Amino acid sequence: MESEIWTDETKKITSKAYGASGNFIGGKKLELMEIERSQPNSDEVLIEILFCGICHSDIHQVNNDWHNTIYPCVPGHEIIGKIIKKGSSVQKFEIDNIVGIGCMIDSCQNCKSCKAGEEQYCLGVVGPTMTYNGYFKPDGTDYNTFGGFSSHIVVKENFLLSIPSEIEIERAAPIVCAGVTTYSPLKHWGVKAGDTVGIIGIGGLGHMGVMIAKAMGAKVTAITTSEDKRDAARLLGADHVLLSTNEEDMKANETTFDFLLCTIPSSFDINPYVNLLSPRGTIITVGLLGPYETATNNMDVAKYGRSIAGSFIGGIAETQEVLDFCATHNIAPHVEIINIQDVNEAFDHIKNEDVRFRYVIDMKSLQHN
Amino acid sequence: MESEIWTDETKKITSKAYGASGNFIGGKKLELMEIERSQPNSDEVLIEILFCGICHSDIHQVNNDWHNTIYPCVPGHEIIGKIIKKGSSVQKFEIDNIVGIGCMIDSCQNCKSCKAGEEQYCLGVVGPTMTYNGYFKPDGTDYNTFGGFSSHIVVKENFLLSIPSEIEIERAAPIVCAGVTTYSPLKHWGVKAGDTVGIIGIGGLGHMGVMIAKAMGAKVTAITTSEDKRDAARLLGADHVLLSTNEEDMKANETTFDFLLCTIPSSFDINPYVNLLSPRGTIITVGLLGPYETATNNMDVAKYGRSIAGSFIGGIAETQEVLDFCATHNIAPHVEIINIQDVNEAFDHIKNEDVRFRYVIDMKSLQHN
Repeated sequence: MESEIWTDETKKITSKAYGASGNFIGGKKLELMEIERSQPNSDEVLIEILFCGICHSDIHQVNNDWHNTIYPCVPGHEIIGKIIKKGSSVQKFEIDNIVGIGCMIDSCQNCKSCKAGEEQYCLGVVGPTMTYNGYFKPDGTDYNTFGGFSSHIVVKENFLLSIPSEIEIERAAPIVCAGVTTYSPLKHWGVKAGDTVGIIGIGGLGHMGVMIAKAMGAKVTAITTSEDKRDAARLLGADHVLLSTNEEDMKANETTFDFLLCTIPSSFDINPYVNLLSPRGTIITVGLLGPYETATNNMDVAKYGRSIAGSFIGGIAETQEVLDFCATHNIAPHVEIINIQDVNEAFDHIKNEDVRFRYVIDMKSLQHN
Repeated sequence: MESEIWTDETKKITSKAYGASGNFIGGKKLELMEIERSQPNSDEVLIEILFCGICHSDIHQVNNDWHNTIYPCVPGHEIIGKIIKKGSSVQKFEIDNIVGIGCMIDSCQNCKSCKAGEEQYCLGVVGPTMTYNGYFKPDGTDYNTFGGFSSHIVVKENFLLSIPSEIEIERAAPIVCAGVTTYSPLKHWGVKAGDTVGIIGIGGLGHMGVMIAKAMGAKVTAITTSEDKRDAARLLGADHVLLSTNEEDMKANETTFDFLLCTIPSSFDINPYVNLLSPRGTIITVGLLGPYETATNNMDVAKYGRSIAGSFIGGIAETQEVLDFCATHNIAPHVEIINIQDVNEAFDHIKNEDVRFRYVIDMKSLQHN
């Protein structure tokens, strides 16, 4: 690519990327492709992507598990990059600033949710514009957005995040998705010092949940099916580890949790976890974007005035807040850095829960193609 | 029955009652029976029952729908009566006082829930002692409690309610169950003036929900499957009526409700109602004590940070609060007064939703047997 691409306003920007040309049925894989991006508008910046985390939802999305995938699909919404060009009205950021981009790059900015700083719940015509697989701009214009498994991205100033200098940039990437996805519900439902909090599922989201809840002062139990995650969970700061496969221990822990955060990334039966909640306790499911495996038994919910909630990422201001929170509390995701050429193998490891705890792609590796 | 029964401390009290000797399979009905009650202890009173409401849960319980019924089962937990004897340490009530008894007659008084005034969520060994079908006293002693479809009942002072003089006593009965069951969640989840509230199911519970939410200053929509309840709902104070069977209207009302209170007394699909909730909205199910008909789709819950909660009656102080609230706001249940001999027919009408809105039994009629 020649430098004029970045400077000639009349030209589209052609970027290298890894994406899916169709769904993964029949062993299809992510493959190298070229994508086009528009030149930045006056309120946008052009970013050279340095690192991009891999989220379990990237796998769901390229696989069309939610029946809404538009192909080609270039995933990646845990993006850290460097600003290499800025629009004329951009005020808060300068060339060479290191910035983050999470799951959204736009929203209507005008509805009740956006005005409350909860752009993720935007009530505009088409909701928030997702960083990838966003079919529409807020005004409903056709547009398939492409994510961070690419060399460059163009984003509005208002959806950029500042990366605190205390955090190593390759470890910052997962904070803008996994970090805020766990921080937002813990904060919204009022977790405070001394509360008893269980984090269910100790993977990319869950390991952040353990560290964040602990930093909030809660007594934290890691709840997992994997005996071999016990030591890792303790190292993350968990006070206790509960194996959900041990019926006796599950029974002994009934009515003891003020709060449960569930990060299991696929369909599961929520009923055994509901029984762990204390009276007035709340369980929030953030990992599953689909139906539970079985119907909820409202007897168990009603008899202790419990709540079952769901939560989806967090707002932009809140994402900045969790970045700052992580810097203050010396928290950073545990990551394995890989090259983009290994992304398909990494997807397989994630599906097999064989990663501690998040893959982050060093996007420089894209230049090897 | 002779008067010595009430005065001779050594004798059990024998009362007439209507109860089920076994479950209703094969067309079995409530029948006249004799039951025994203990003489009141020093902290208890003996009450002559004047009126008793019929709750849908009475039908579920005698029918063993929750698989926990102990026979003989004498239902009734919307009790209004007159104190005819009091224990030596009873301070707050006098002979001839008109009092109410709701769904509980005891609890451990010692757990976190009881100390918070939420005896309904008692964490004692066997939870709260229910007014009927309470198999255990808080200490775990075997004991099948008998409810209000009887001539007399013995209750601890601390579980008695004062009936405000503004409320006709026969109309007060349903407040101690249907009233508090709808008031408690509306209050706990913070319904306030101007909120948009939907009450789903306009029966015994729902009609109280409409009146109470309206008195709290909410904009209230009655949500029903029955076109023929439209006028009644408007007379109760509903600002709008939404037919849940009209898919177009349901669609048009998506994301508009801050709060939904669901009083449907049997298993149903909650998913269409979840979609009516605004971002951060909460739906509370109070009518169903069992599994939903289908699995909840967490996509719809998470994408707007919604909550699905359950709630079970209310605490004793809160039950007094709703009685006083009803007196202040000039609210009273709409009732049809019947004789105990018509109770089986009334059960059939309730099952067919053919009552506006609550049957209350005039317990004097028991003397005709």
